[in-house]
Amino acid sequence: MIKTEDKLMMMPGPVAVPPRVLMAMARPMINHRGKEFSAIYDDCQRISASLFGTAPENISVISGSGTAGMEAAIGCLNNKEDKILAIENGKFGQRFKKIAGKYGNVVPLEFEWGKSIDLALVEEKLEAGDIKTIAMVHNESSTAIKNPAPEIGALAKKYDAYFILDVVSSVGGDDIKVDKWNVDIAVTGSQKCIAAPPGLSIVSANERALSEMQNVKTRPYYLDLVAYHKSASKELKETPYTPAVSLFFALQEALKMIEEEGLDKRIERHYLMTKAVRDSVTAIGIEMFPQLNEVSAYSNTVSAMKAPAGISGEDIKKALSKKGIIITGGQDDLKGKIFRIGSMGATTPTNIMTTLTELEQILDDMGVIEQTGAVMDIAGKTMGKLYE
Amino acid sequence: MIKTEDKLMMMPGPVAVPPRVLMAMARPMINHRGKEFSAIYDDCQRISASLFGTAPENISVISGSGTAGMEAAIGCLNNKEDKILAIENGKFGQRFKKIAGKYGNVVPLEFEWGKSIDLALVEEKLEAGDIKTIAMVHNESSTAIKNPAPEIGALAKKYDAYFILDVVSSVGGDDIKVDKWNVDIAVTGSQKCIAAPPGLSIVSANERALSEMQNVKTRPYYLDLVAYHKSASKELKETPYTPAVSLFFALQEALKMIEEEGLDKRIERHYLMTKAVRDSVTAIGIEMFPQLNEVSAYSNTVSAMKAPAGISGEDIKKALSKKGIIITGGQDDLKGKIFRIGSMGATTPTNIMTTLTELEQILDDMGVIEQTGAVMDIAGKTMGKLYE
Repeated sequence: MIKTEDKLMMMPGPVAVPPRVLMAMARPMINHRGKEFSAIYDDCQRISASLFGTAPENISVISGSGTAGMEAAIGCLNNKEDKILAIENGKFGQRFKKIAGKYGNVVPLEFEWGKSIDLALVEEKLEAGDIKTIAMVHNESSTAIKNPAPEIGALAKKYDAYFILDVVSSVGGDDIKVDKWNVDIAVTGSQKCIAAPPGLSIVSANERALSEMQNVKTRPYYLDLVAYHKSASKELKETPYTPAVSLFFALQEALKMIEEEGLDKRIERHYLMTKAVRDSVTAIGIEMFPQLNEVSAYSNTVSAMKAPAGISGEDIKKALSKKGIIITGGQDDLKGKIFRIGSMGATTPTNIMTTLTELEQILDDMGVIEQTGAVMDIAGKTMGKLYE
Repeated sequence: MIKTEDKLMMMPGPVAVPPRVLMAMARPMINHRGKEFSAIYDDCQRISASLFGTAPENISVISGSGTAGMEAAIGCLNNKEDKILAIENGKFGQRFKKIAGKYGNVVPLEFEWGKSIDLALVEEKLEAGDIKTIAMVHNESSTAIKNPAPEIGALAKKYDAYFILDVVSSVGGDDIKVDKWNVDIAVTGSQKCIAAPPGLSIVSANERALSEMQNVKTRPYYLDLVAYHKSASKELKETPYTPAVSLFFALQEALKMIEEEGLDKRIERHYLMTKAVRDSVTAIGIEMFPQLNEVSAYSNTVSAMKAPAGISGEDIKKALSKKGIIITGGQDDLKGKIFRIGSMGATTPTNIMTTLTELEQILDDMGVIEQTGAVMDIAGKTMGKLYE
């Protein structure tokens, strides 16, 4: 059995964390009510803001997972009677719907997992009712679909609704423009394309949303964005409750690495790595799982493939695991039907190549394909630019 | 100016984290849905249970601060109409009251900060009304008082109320017996006497509490203890949402260090270190802040002193800070009036001695005392046993 340290983490998060970032966590503890912590918080706000496409003062950081941030967004913006349109086409859209049901009057709009969102049906719901908030996942990592955020943002504007966008698995690996897209609150996690350890949720909330939150008396306590934004202000640059200080050390370091790489280059790297997965697996006869329409796209950060006929996705996952490569299967009803390969964060073209060639070998062993050798050429061509 | 790395953290949390624990966080990331993580979770449950005085299966761990755990306890156990008796004699009791107001019908019982809890007044409230839940802080670190948990637990039993106890700043540094004391839910943080970094909240909830939670429809989502306990069960040993994996590495290591030291010895060390602070500061004319009665005691983990006449506690704090020793002042209305020295976690008798001798020097410089040299003898005598 291969040791943990040698394993290749190819899941759609948590991802492998670069040694520089891991070592940052070994720094001695500091007072979280002091200038040193404020300087770290300031870095986190400033660099995160560029990843979200917004201003640094809109950013706050919660010690908790991405789900905590999703709940903060829904719970702080909506009273029990407020109608929340929850758009679902995967596991995380479903989670948004569940959270929306806790805090508001949820109007579900469900698409089969793996199918794309139909804008006409979204507009129908907006026309029919008094929707206060639209909640959607940008990059639905459970099915590897990029949902149409700019288009939904335009509808939100047209119908004067608030727009909450889950960008957990896209920020840092795809182009996000929350201000331009009319997104009022956007939420990400530290452990996906930012390549820091899990445990922090980074939230962007604009003035419009923060002002509306004053009218919501049922805001949660630990997840009260009003408190986070007050503490995150220029004068304080801290958190309302004790933060996970070591994770802030890591987040700061991971964000600095993004600055050093350059965000555009990083997004292109993510794009070419996922494209290399698609190009090569489809060339050997594996079908992509997402059913795209004109407003959706393949995810920039994760790929979902249908398991070949007669083979369970779980068996492919297990066979790769024996070789020390950790990918993910399908969730809930999709278990066994699909398998997913992440290309997030610090993942390199070489990691992708290793995964693809081992996958090809496994499919050959299983009798799914008749010969090996194709993927290396195809993936190499797609990712060629990254080696220049 | 002294560098961070050389600073002596003598606050009542976050405390200095031992290098072994810091280094544990530098471990490469692992899949949080795998056997390796489950084994870590199991260790955390098992050792934490001994610190709480309960069974391992009652323990779950939330990625969030102690406040997150407090909200989970209140929010999962109470419906909006349920009466919650919130006992307050300090900052964290006040926080409990605020959280209780979010989820239930709060019945406040306020004592002046620094005064002890009067059991007769507690019983009066219980006699008067239909109290479902009593919420209290065990170790009120804002004023350094140990509140009477066993006595309140007995009253909870007598009046058939649920008892939620905040043991954030006492678990791992004081004797806690939640089962024996009739505590239904108890909450601690990783960054106090356990001496891990901040960011995890460890919750103990018994069968009685978990069963009642099924009747509470307004339970929060990210902080839903039912979900945490389901995931923490023997079959899974994991968390419902992505955990802060690196902080679990640290918590496991910190808990192992407690096992190695031995819990009884650790509690005695905490006791003798806080007693050394009291013995020596009172000997040089500084008054302790807490006003104790027969059922309360000085905290086992932090000491609060009145600022001498004409001197602000903040000035004492600043003067120590210049010497690289970080203590804490008073919070809110107590700012300037008191100063506090923590003796939590991995703090050593030598750290206490350094703090006390520097404090004595500062008080001499300020003209508060007339000569130095007393504290070393007194503190040395009190802590003598620890050097054996």
